[in-house]
Amino acid sequence: MQKRADNNGNKVYFLFYVCVVGWFAKPSHTKTETHEDFSKNLKEFLDEMQTNQIREHLRKFTRLPHLAGTEQNLKYAEQIKKEWLEFGLDSVSLVPYDVLLSYPNKSQPNYISICDDLGNEVFNTSLAEPIPQGYEDVSNIVPPYSAFSAKGQPQGDLVYVNYGRTEDFFQLEREMGINVTGKIVIVRYGKIFRGNKVKNAMLAGAKGIIMFSDPADYWAADVEPYPDGWNLPGGGAQRGNVLNLNGAGDPLTPGYPAKEYTYRFSLDEGVGLPKIPVHPIGFHDAIHLLKKVRMNIHTNNQVTRIYNVIGKIRGALEPDRYVILGGHRDAWVFGGIDPMSGAAVLHETARSAGSLLKKGWRPRRTIIFASWDAEEFGLLGSTEWAEDNARLLQERAVAYINADSAIEGMYTLRVDCTPSLHTLAYDITKQVSLLAHTTHLKLIIHINLKLSSLFNIMISKLGSGSDFEAYFIRLGIAAGRARYTKNRKTERYSSYPVYHSVYETFEIVERFYDPSFRRLRAVAQVRGGLIFMLADSKLLPLDVNEYADSLGKYAQSIAEVAQKHPEQMELYKVSFDSLFSAVQNFSAAARDFYARLQTLHTEDPLQLRVVNDQLMYLERAFIDPLGLPGRPFYRHVIFAPSSHNKYAGESFPGIYDALFDIENSADPEKAWQEVKRQISIAAFMVHAAAMTLTPPA
Amino acid sequence: MQKRADNNGNKVYFLFYVCVVGWFAKPSHTKTETHEDFSKNLKEFLDEMQTNQIREHLRKFTRLPHLAGTEQNLKYAEQIKKEWLEFGLDSVSLVPYDVLLSYPNKSQPNYISICDDLGNEVFNTSLAEPIPQGYEDVSNIVPPYSAFSAKGQPQGDLVYVNYGRTEDFFQLEREMGINVTGKIVIVRYGKIFRGNKVKNAMLAGAKGIIMFSDPADYWAADVEPYPDGWNLPGGGAQRGNVLNLNGAGDPLTPGYPAKEYTYRFSLDEGVGLPKIPVHPIGFHDAIHLLKKVRMNIHTNNQVTRIYNVIGKIRGALEPDRYVILGGHRDAWVFGGIDPMSGAAVLHETARSAGSLLKKGWRPRRTIIFASWDAEEFGLLGSTEWAEDNARLLQERAVAYINADSAIEGMYTLRVDCTPSLHTLAYDITKQVSLLAHTTHLKLIIHINLKLSSLFNIMISKLGSGSDFEAYFIRLGIAAGRARYTKNRKTERYSSYPVYHSVYETFEIVERFYDPSFRRLRAVAQVRGGLIFMLADSKLLPLDVNEYADSLGKYAQSIAEVAQKHPEQMELYKVSFDSLFSAVQNFSAAARDFYARLQTLHTEDPLQLRVVNDQLMYLERAFIDPLGLPGRPFYRHVIFAPSSHNKYAGESFPGIYDALFDIENSADPEKAWQEVKRQISIAAFMVHAAAMTLTPPA
Repeated sequence: MQKRADNNGNKVYFLFYVCVVGWFAKPSHTKTETHEDFSKNLKEFLDEMQTNQIREHLRKFTRLPHLAGTEQNLKYAEQIKKEWLEFGLDSVSLVPYDVLLSYPNKSQPNYISICDDLGNEVFNTSLAEPIPQGYEDVSNIVPPYSAFSAKGQPQGDLVYVNYGRTEDFFQLEREMGINVTGKIVIVRYGKIFRGNKVKNAMLAGAKGIIMFSDPADYWAADVEPYPDGWNLPGGGAQRGNVLNLNGAGDPLTPGYPAKEYTYRFSLDEGVGLPKIPVHPIGFHDAIHLLKKVRMNIHTNNQVTRIYNVIGKIRGALEPDRYVILGGHRDAWVFGGIDPMSGAAVLHETARSAGSLLKKGWRPRRTIIFASWDAEEFGLLGSTEWAEDNARLLQERAVAYINADSAIEGMYTLRVDCTPSLHTLAYDITKQVSLLAHTTHLKLIIHINLKLSSLFNIMISKLGSGSDFEAYFIRLGIAAGRARYTKNRKTERYSSYPVYHSVYETFEIVERFYDPSFRRLRAVAQVRGGLIFMLADSKLLPLDVNEYADSLGKYAQSIAEVAQKHPEQMELYKVSFDSLFSAVQNFSAAARDFYARLQTLHTEDPLQLRVVNDQLMYLERAFIDPLGLPGRPFYRHVIFAPSSHNKYAGESFPGIYDALFDIENSADPEKAWQEVKRQISIAAFMVHAAAMTLTPPA
Repeated sequence: MQKRADNNGNKVYFLFYVCVVGWFAKPSHTKTETHEDFSKNLKEFLDEMQTNQIREHLRKFTRLPHLAGTEQNLKYAEQIKKEWLEFGLDSVSLVPYDVLLSYPNKSQPNYISICDDLGNEVFNTSLAEPIPQGYEDVSNIVPPYSAFSAKGQPQGDLVYVNYGRTEDFFQLEREMGINVTGKIVIVRYGKIFRGNKVKNAMLAGAKGIIMFSDPADYWAADVEPYPDGWNLPGGGAQRGNVLNLNGAGDPLTPGYPAKEYTYRFSLDEGVGLPKIPVHPIGFHDAIHLLKKVRMNIHTNNQVTRIYNVIGKIRGALEPDRYVILGGHRDAWVFGGIDPMSGAAVLHETARSAGSLLKKGWRPRRTIIFASWDAEEFGLLGSTEWAEDNARLLQERAVAYINADSAIEGMYTLRVDCTPSLHTLAYDITKQVSLLAHTTHLKLIIHINLKLSSLFNIMISKLGSGSDFEAYFIRLGIAAGRARYTKNRKTERYSSYPVYHSVYETFEIVERFYDPSFRRLRAVAQVRGGLIFMLADSKLLPLDVNEYADSLGKYAQSIAEVAQKHPEQMELYKVSFDSLFSAVQNFSAAARDFYARLQTLHTEDPLQLRVVNDQLMYLERAFIDPLGLPGRPFYRHVIFAPSSHNKYAGESFPGIYDALFDIENSADPEKAWQEVKRQISIAAFMVHAAAMTLTPPA
């Protein structure tokens, strides 16, 4: 492998067909296991994952709606438990929590109306989506709604605010002089997490918010609406929660698991609950809305029992080191893509691991498979379990790999991960593509999202919006996710057209997204390969030099943001020197660490464990128990979900937020002091992380 | 060893002469090292600590005043570094921080005056203590002052508030109807930490506070004042800081180490700084004060460089496991008792370890010796180092043993430690007393402070007021301290009479406290023995069953506090069931863990490490990153310094504080909800800690 800069200065890896499983694949654990055994086991593990099995898993778990908190979702949990035990996992258990969920009121539907001067409703939005063929007899399809919306029937002028982003509201207020206080706003879905739109509307003083799917954002070119193609029908609408949890998990038990005995805040005190009514509509309804509307929202919040399924394969030599593969099971309706394409892949990974176990293999470290509940309601199942097990996880977790939707496009593989996983992700992807004997996964990898179509595997940084959040951002566990995705350059629609609609069926995957199920198999192999390597390699396959490189880039990039204000930087004596110096320190420590690895006596179990602990705890070193300003559960100083879009990852988020819109700050002196404070914190944290890589005594 | 309850239901250990070094002294690390070698090394290590050496160390480090931030204290740091290197430590370094300190203004002395009607000063309190014989030519003796006092010259009526405790102010205001708003209060020293007195005075609205040493609290019966005895002369006064830091360390850099580049809050924003003038006086001055006084306080706060000395002995097999022996070096004046009796003992421990090293011994784990700076200004040196190294410490620190004053009385040995260290403390003390061939350390140990004179070794829980605080309460590292103390039952004075006065000299130790230096030697051996056992035992000598027993007692005791309000408990449905159930869980997990230990294959390095990690991280499991209400740096859910007296340890502090004075709460509903919330947090944390003791997969 060689690195060089491409024409745009972006780092590009050119791969050559060198050894199949990289430098980290040192001989494995058992005295008799050799390098060859290890490679053979990996190959067997990957080969065992089969397209027809994945198809079957997806088929059986998408027949019925299985919203979090419903009986059907518990049934699927029990079925998964039973099958994982049959696969051969050492233990599988259902882990319940009692969390706040939100459902439409069955006797009082939610809708938006236009009223005439006498108050008569002259137009009402649809109460449900047209049911797709083959599912006409299915009951319990929850209509489109915004989970956790406030109840209410606000009525008034409607103001269109584009995507409802921070900049959209700024433009409306600052450039156009329009005040939305007391009005109802309508925004397009897309670009940012819907919860951020709701928060922005609330901050602007709106008394309600309507969100609609614009064909500009939810139609792919030259594609038919479902069932003839995979575009969103005009009657379809996007469900979704509208919380601003900032990592808190269950809104009523922030910081602690929602057990029976746990103290619960009242609804007034709950974290992140919107104070205004919110409702989603499709574009067939959207075009009818005029200047004045009434919202009719009767959605109820209620504490409801949810169930995670936790399966374990005990580690042979280091049972107290955990490698986690987790994804959610709850779906808004059938979950054909979100999440069951991921759950089917996870199921197949568990089956393959079980199959290897039955042949006598056992990984060096413990593998934990998790089927999370209530992800759609704010990452609740995964976050509650993280809270419940925080002490075990922070001492013992090596890595967390996420298993949400495995496919959202048909173009290429996309990996988002922490920098120390870059090299492993690259190596595994290569391995998978060799196994597949295909050329469609070209052996070129690109860090960052700025892609040219040449590069068929993208690696970028983690945002949020899925279950890795608590593990990565709150606990500091190295994390990654992988999925098949669209071509971001040419396909400009948001997520995928039928996202969170009733049209996410088994058939949309089978007919359009992956008829051969080979894409899903590739995702299974990449996710599974990551888990295998992390659980069974003697030396942990985490690359400290990649972290150093990324820190250098992020520092450069945040300094450039600040340097847009050269006069203020001089006036308030703002300098990034301490951060750059810390990054240099870190890079030197990483290089020295890597050099020492070359002489490591890997046959000495304690020497190996000492070094592996340094690797494992590197990500933990970026956790500041004081959290980011106003976001106590976002504790990672290098990465956090953007304050303006939960889906996007922001690097050096403390500094970024302090700089945001600073030119309009009411108290520039104070604002720049906060920038300086955040630079100082970031510099210290990077220094401190560097120290963890130096010889321990 | 047998346990049984004494007549008062307290647990008492009756010891018999069984094996000398307890169950934990399994064969040691190097392949050739046997149980016999281990015991021989321990004995050699303890024997090497010599009375004449301790005497010399104390002599040389108490000749000159060495207040934190002064040149002399840096000189002592350099001398310690030089000598530790000569002793044979692997590395020794000076670690600087720039922290906020506070000194009297040299050109404008602090004093209290009584003025006549014309405003003329008719009486002024002394500007200094009478210098003890032999030290007449010494310069740089800082006069008695309250460090971090606000500046000011308030004038007004004086109100006496006994010890200035919460209950003293309650009595004044509620029973006597006296309002101190706008008045100057005068309180006796003693009973509680002086910072709490100042806080109480501020909360009550006082505009200044004077603290004096009452003979009732600072005179031992039938003892002469220094130099003829060890009582406090009438002209002596107690220096001390009056901060309310709640564990923050440097007031201007809470949460982060005070490095050159670190962002500093302004003095207005600093943590824990008193807003009113404060001054200490002796009782010769106190008797003159009348109804009206003027305070004249000109003390300055200034950011000042301080120096810790950090010495290391690299662990042979587990260099990434740290056992820390740390104590402070800075003294208000000579520091004859506080802290140099402890520093001399630490110095001798380092010398003895070095001597063993030279003979080829090397401990299994890394030993860190620390000479902290600026303890007297709010535990600053130790806390800044803990902040600087938090990531290393939370992953790697096995235990922290504190080395402040080694002697404060002549009666018996006192150990304060976390419950998991009870058994080791007991075993080591027995070992030391056997070595000493004395009967004055009787072989009976008592948990809790309720002592009868029969029991000559006391073990109680840790409060604060010394450098273990950040390690134990913030980071959750098992911690302990040991010193020679008075008989609490018969000697009712506070701390020791000359505490923080100029009369803390070498001579007071040599003439009165420990003429043979055998008491200091015993303390050296106990502290050193703890360190040795923790660093060199194969299996960590931490006793999980003792923790279970203590949790049971604390739960019982806090439930009893609540049960003083049976009607409210019923009305608000307050129950301790979840906490008792968690404690039962913990006890069962601890028993099972202990049972598994008996079959542990200690020759398997990974198996051993897994179990040792469980032992090491048990204390960490009690750390809640969210901290206690209003005290973000006190994070230990089982132990915190009392909110009413920093020196005292409170168990289940969250619940305790929620219950405090609840009968006078303005909003009982809300107050009892908070009690319930705190019970729920405590129950969860105990459950979570129990989980860490179960098999890891």
